[in-house]
Amino acid sequence: MVRARKLCVECALLRSSESHHVRCSSGALSVLVSVLWVWGAAAGAVAAAARAPETVAAQLRDAAMTGHDIAYAWVSELTTRFGPRPAGSLNEQQAAEWAAARLTALGFENVHIESFPVTAWVRGTESAQIVAPNIQPLVIAALGESPPTPGTGLEGDVVIFQTLNDLEAAAPGSLTGKIAMVAQRMVRTQDGAGYVAAVPARTDGPHEAAERGAIAFLLRSVGTGSHRIAHTGTTRYVDGRVAVPAFALSAPDADQIERIAARGQRVRVWLFSSASYLPGAHSQNVIADIRGAERPQEVVLLGAHLDSWDQGTGAIDDGTGTAIIAAAAKLIRDLPQRPRRTVRVVLFGSEEVGQPAPPGGALGGHAYATNHQAELANHVLAGESDFGTDRVYQLALPQAVSESDFAKRVMRVLTPIGVLASERPPEDVGTDIGPSVEAGVPAFALSQDGMRYFDIHHTPDDTLDKVDREQLDQNVAAWAALVWLAADSDVDFRGHPVPAPAPKS
Amino acid sequence: MVRARKLCVECALLRSSESHHVRCSSGALSVLVSVLWVWGAAAGAVAAAARAPETVAAQLRDAAMTGHDIAYAWVSELTTRFGPRPAGSLNEQQAAEWAAARLTALGFENVHIESFPVTAWVRGTESAQIVAPNIQPLVIAALGESPPTPGTGLEGDVVIFQTLNDLEAAAPGSLTGKIAMVAQRMVRTQDGAGYVAAVPARTDGPHEAAERGAIAFLLRSVGTGSHRIAHTGTTRYVDGRVAVPAFALSAPDADQIERIAARGQRVRVWLFSSASYLPGAHSQNVIADIRGAERPQEVVLLGAHLDSWDQGTGAIDDGTGTAIIAAAAKLIRDLPQRPRRTVRVVLFGSEEVGQPAPPGGALGGHAYATNHQAELANHVLAGESDFGTDRVYQLALPQAVSESDFAKRVMRVLTPIGVLASERPPEDVGTDIGPSVEAGVPAFALSQDGMRYFDIHHTPDDTLDKVDREQLDQNVAAWAALVWLAADSDVDFRGHPVPAPAPKS
Repeated sequence: MVRARKLCVECALLRSSESHHVRCSSGALSVLVSVLWVWGAAAGAVAAAARAPETVAAQLRDAAMTGHDIAYAWVSELTTRFGPRPAGSLNEQQAAEWAAARLTALGFENVHIESFPVTAWVRGTESAQIVAPNIQPLVIAALGESPPTPGTGLEGDVVIFQTLNDLEAAAPGSLTGKIAMVAQRMVRTQDGAGYVAAVPARTDGPHEAAERGAIAFLLRSVGTGSHRIAHTGTTRYVDGRVAVPAFALSAPDADQIERIAARGQRVRVWLFSSASYLPGAHSQNVIADIRGAERPQEVVLLGAHLDSWDQGTGAIDDGTGTAIIAAAAKLIRDLPQRPRRTVRVVLFGSEEVGQPAPPGGALGGHAYATNHQAELANHVLAGESDFGTDRVYQLALPQAVSESDFAKRVMRVLTPIGVLASERPPEDVGTDIGPSVEAGVPAFALSQDGMRYFDIHHTPDDTLDKVDREQLDQNVAAWAALVWLAADSDVDFRGHPVPAPAPKS
Repeated sequence: MVRARKLCVECALLRSSESHHVRCSSGALSVLVSVLWVWGAAAGAVAAAARAPETVAAQLRDAAMTGHDIAYAWVSELTTRFGPRPAGSLNEQQAAEWAAARLTALGFENVHIESFPVTAWVRGTESAQIVAPNIQPLVIAALGESPPTPGTGLEGDVVIFQTLNDLEAAAPGSLTGKIAMVAQRMVRTQDGAGYVAAVPARTDGPHEAAERGAIAFLLRSVGTGSHRIAHTGTTRYVDGRVAVPAFALSAPDADQIERIAARGQRVRVWLFSSASYLPGAHSQNVIADIRGAERPQEVVLLGAHLDSWDQGTGAIDDGTGTAIIAAAAKLIRDLPQRPRRTVRVVLFGSEEVGQPAPPGGALGGHAYATNHQAELANHVLAGESDFGTDRVYQLALPQAVSESDFAKRVMRVLTPIGVLASERPPEDVGTDIGPSVEAGVPAFALSQDGMRYFDIHHTPDDTLDKVDREQLDQNVAAWAALVWLAADSDVDFRGHPVPAPAPKS
């Protein structure tokens, strides 16, 4: 039921009169804090504090689904003002400062930035062409952390392997002076399994090629797109691995090389990259709380990452993730009552290019788990939004509560917006909350539809126009409802399910 | 009705035994000349020469629709072996030599290359970024014929105009030191009208900007795509126009600049291009005939262009056009009887970057009309395939025959494959045959569905994977049937319709 509304001159948006002043109090930021609030019952007739958590969750869900501006305005401003935000860059730092100011203005508490050192990787310029049997330009992207080529580039004959396994089966020395190419195609799947299957060619391929004498490594983009844009992503040069310049080819360019080779012709390629490393840079996590009313030391953690790859503007990876969790938390923040537990938003830095590292290493997730080690025992639940903008289709809860009343209550609220219950607990919880989860924090996963995610992810195409606003709203709805229910409960997600709390009086 | 077939070991393709030896005779080229031939009546029972032209046309149509390999193999080999084929380039020349050899092997007559001089335009390297309010890379493509920037690039504030008209309304001197940008969006239409409406911003915009003091020109890509790839195309620097470096922006980059400006912020951009001109280059037309049996001096001209933009491999612009006309003519070539008139395939050079020029100028179409001036009075009909790979939906015939028995006969053959009769004669016949049509040659137009054409056209995405084989076959079917009927007739397309010829005896 929609309450009578009036037009707020300051905000230029329709809103319920009751909730207007709180939300509009941030003045210049009013466009961001606009919420079209839909109450389930006439305000005043039922005291807010007396509403059952499930009723409030449904109201949060419906408010988000109605379409509001917080999430889209967030990702629009983030990507427009700061563009690409590679880890350790000025753009990433400025985006973090903006996010902290914005979260403060939105009414969050304990807002602060926690910096940590990184060695930044900078793409520089890059170029490639087929030089024999005739000259044809190639569309490539250096893989993250790839070393540069010599200043005059590298040139060699291409040896094509259909899979990483085929490359690993090549004899030592068999690739001396050659450019190894893995042509494996990624399978399109809803849950990202196709990406998981294809990524080892990127992380392990350069080392395996170098071990066999190759001077460079080419990879068919680990993505599902068919455009002349290449999918970057980090490769691994730690743990004793050999560094060799490594590049992704766009899918049509990989096709072209394969077709020329299939004609029985030798394919010779020239590669150039001026990539470089900047030691002494820093990245940062942005932290913001909605302090719990009864047990503020207990934290429900919502994570996403502010850094992005440099080719696009990080709209779906992971601008929308940061927008979803900020908007969901803001909806909870604007309720008449606070949740019992603290809701914490963490916008992580340096998610994309971090190398596997000991705790406290180059990932924002490591930095957080290290800095907050003493608090992790009181982190009751954590989730991460880092799979784009498309709809949530499944919720996986920790094993301990999978059959609980809590789970049933959550699903009653989420099923109407197209979310199914997973039969298994979360398997891959994400890079940002991963170190905290490894330290014992229980995790949930709101799985998003990944059918088009890898057409865009890590490519120059990751721009604002790819954001689907309706699906973005559905994400906010699912996050707001679930997080509210978890934060306003007594449920022990670690292993001791307890009855759901009765409505507060 | 499909005749009994056997597998040809040499061709590895099913074919009718009767027609096999003729088609397979070119040995090494057998994969290209493979045709799955479907006869409408048992061979031998009806003498081929006795078949009505309409029956033969229907057979040609059905043979093409069944799916054969000529057209796809042609565009696959052309784009794979030679890649981009800019006018005046070595790749264009080698592609022309290949095409001539291939047409000879396919059984065409009078196959030869006619060269003409061009000044080639070479893209070089190019780069652009927003430098204020913060640094963000931009995806651009220099417009064809655009001069380079200084070696250190150009930098200026961007002044955005929504349309070319708005730019033209700006006061003299008002853009001094600025970069003018036209942000007009192209409308998606089936018939290309959206492109026609948008292109003047590209051809005239740089001059209009320079006239008002601008140091460079930016254009939202004249295309319908939403990817981070820019749509190039030629701009005009002849006829006293002022040359200023001019670039297309990808659609998401144009959006980004507009969004930053809409925040009230000054957008400052740096641009670099090392484009250059190569005087003394040459381009060429490839000509191949099927000599007419009765009136060989009368020519039905089929045109398409072999050159392409440099960003892609010219698969749909115009690799498929050359494939369609070559395959259609080859189907006619392989009939037991020859058509009465000559069918001529012309693969034009230098279609893309030619500047408006007097007859005999830089376009392949001008060169042909000049070289063959004396024959044009005997060119009875001409058509051009230069709108990609998607299906033909409409046929426009010259006014003189629009209500004739010939038109009715053609439509009886083409309607079953989804081709409607246009209510008007052709309006835009194409750049290649244009000069010949201006000299009086009647033209037809087989209009193709352009709904996705401008997502790909003139971008790096113009690659083989974008070719739809089924729709390519339908094009070949329409061309083969129509060209056969025109070439085997006595119809005067200039203005004196005559009764259709009776079946030959």
